[in-house]
Amino acid sequence: MSDIMLARPAVRWFWLFLFWPLWLQAAEPLPAWNDGLSKTAIVEFVQAVTTDGTKDFVKPAERIAVFDNDGTLRSEQPMYFQMLFALEEVHRLAPQHPEWKQQQPFKAVLDNDQKTLADSGMDGLLKIIGATHTQVSTQAFLTNVRAWLAKAVHPKTHKPYTEMVYQPMLELLTYLRANGFKTYIVSGGEVEFMRAWTEEVYGIPPEQVIGTTFTGEYQYNDGKPVIMRMPKLAHNDDGPGKPVSIDAVIGRRPIMAFGNSDGDLQMLQWTASGDGKRFMGLVHHTDAQREWAYDRNSKIGKLDKALDQAAAQNWTVVDMAKEWRQIYPFDTPAP
Amino acid sequence: MSDIMLARPAVRWFWLFLFWPLWLQAAEPLPAWNDGLSKTAIVEFVQAVTTDGTKDFVKPAERIAVFDNDGTLRSEQPMYFQMLFALEEVHRLAPQHPEWKQQQPFKAVLDNDQKTLADSGMDGLLKIIGATHTQVSTQAFLTNVRAWLAKAVHPKTHKPYTEMVYQPMLELLTYLRANGFKTYIVSGGEVEFMRAWTEEVYGIPPEQVIGTTFTGEYQYNDGKPVIMRMPKLAHNDDGPGKPVSIDAVIGRRPIMAFGNSDGDLQMLQWTASGDGKRFMGLVHHTDAQREWAYDRNSKIGKLDKALDQAAAQNWTVVDMAKEWRQIYPFDTPAP
Repeated sequence: MSDIMLARPAVRWFWLFLFWPLWLQAAEPLPAWNDGLSKTAIVEFVQAVTTDGTKDFVKPAERIAVFDNDGTLRSEQPMYFQMLFALEEVHRLAPQHPEWKQQQPFKAVLDNDQKTLADSGMDGLLKIIGATHTQVSTQAFLTNVRAWLAKAVHPKTHKPYTEMVYQPMLELLTYLRANGFKTYIVSGGEVEFMRAWTEEVYGIPPEQVIGTTFTGEYQYNDGKPVIMRMPKLAHNDDGPGKPVSIDAVIGRRPIMAFGNSDGDLQMLQWTASGDGKRFMGLVHHTDAQREWAYDRNSKIGKLDKALDQAAAQNWTVVDMAKEWRQIYPFDTPAP
Repeated sequence: MSDIMLARPAVRWFWLFLFWPLWLQAAEPLPAWNDGLSKTAIVEFVQAVTTDGTKDFVKPAERIAVFDNDGTLRSEQPMYFQMLFALEEVHRLAPQHPEWKQQQPFKAVLDNDQKTLADSGMDGLLKIIGATHTQVSTQAFLTNVRAWLAKAVHPKTHKPYTEMVYQPMLELLTYLRANGFKTYIVSGGEVEFMRAWTEEVYGIPPEQVIGTTFTGEYQYNDGKPVIMRMPKLAHNDDGPGKPVSIDAVIGRRPIMAFGNSDGDLQMLQWTASGDGKRFMGLVHHTDAQREWAYDRNSKIGKLDKALDQAAAQNWTVVDMAKEWRQIYPFDTPAP
């Protein structure tokens, strides 16, 4: 900007207005994070890769940040919310399936028979997911998910599931996008189950949501075509499936990755192994009081090998109890 | 802007500078297109969906435009360029495969025996694609494609393949992006074969390129992980595969789609069947002099059913000979 322009008071105000959002951001990034190792590491990383003319600078087009969803951006206890949805859908759909009264694992769900349900194992789980997530068009499935979200509440907090997201991570997503990053979800969750709400809740549009997918089938349907969800897994987006889907869908290696479990290990390894400055982060669930505390021995979100590799390679491990002033948006921040 | 600011000459210049790109665009959109039905339809569509406060307005986040690649954004004769790459790769890789001297269809490629090659049919084609496109990491494959592009020339024009793109379509992509559209490629071509050059040539980043994919396998490789391309098709992005991949990867229905063959029919139907204003376009190869002329009886890029449906439903059919002042960037525009 020229000296001539700066000399005029009205024009000076105009510039202030132009940079208002940046100025606000600079004032207080990540307010729900306590000053600590993780916040410092995040801010230093972002400043390094966004400062033009330095060796660590990364062009905006290559600023890809990937986030696991369950346990990283929101809670995943007492079980994955998608599974809670599936169980409630079995109840809702039961009148259309009188045979379920005699058929396992559906009978166990309808009878609220936890033991038989647990005994049905992975095979039973897949039957329930298949019956509630497929043989329906994408559009109809999105409608089902949204109808559930509108009334379902979490068994512990009694809050809608869309509010069980982590305030510090919402701030991190916003902070990254304000710094030219493209934020992606890369989750073991089914992709459309997430797309039903991720844009509204995280500001992440459908095309930046990667997840487990079922095979789709195009049906012309007399000029009203639909994509039918077939009961056949197309991609299991967990563990080694994560770098594979990142490669297939994004086609660039991320420079930042955040997870919380061993299912995220390969995504973090893949991110770590690129050239230049990198950020690998793990959310460590250490807060039994405000959220949950679990890691190496948990059935949901087991964090064991990834915790070892994080220690060995100096990845950032966020101690939720110590580093987060606030867990959920509805919480009052700690002083 | 206020009267006070307009009253100062320096400030008036500042505003002109700010709107310079828009002003240029307004002056002459799509210069390589003759004024005609197609150009008019495109400009009217874009103005309709981008004019806020009208019934046809579409939010920028939902302005998704999808383009087939071969025959729509660039030439596809005398055969798909990817196939020409595969044949040349067989020659390059032959010293590492002495068995190919006795093994069909490789022997036919090495002997330049067109008849035997043609007789090997789809089975032979898949063997050649498998041998040249898989059992290699994504990164190494990209290197192979770029090395080929750097020296290969088209058999008819003797120009690099990256220059065999249509100037009118390059302008259309730019025009759409200037109007807030997100432009995607949705092609039967293999996705990494395209990503090797689409950002540079079309301004379309890797994450907006959708195509046929092979199954990927994550290999840890002693801390230097790679994604290996396995000789197993994951998705065939042709015909009904196109709306399926659009649904899986983008998760939104496009409002604009452009193709040139029956392999694009379902993508156009899918685009057409959404709510609100829509644009469906076909490039019709009518220019035997400057490019090629083919449609209903062509082996490559057969355009038959889609041409009928375009006529029945008033989709835009671009008569290349009449409507394009210029085909390639290296051509001199017609007066």
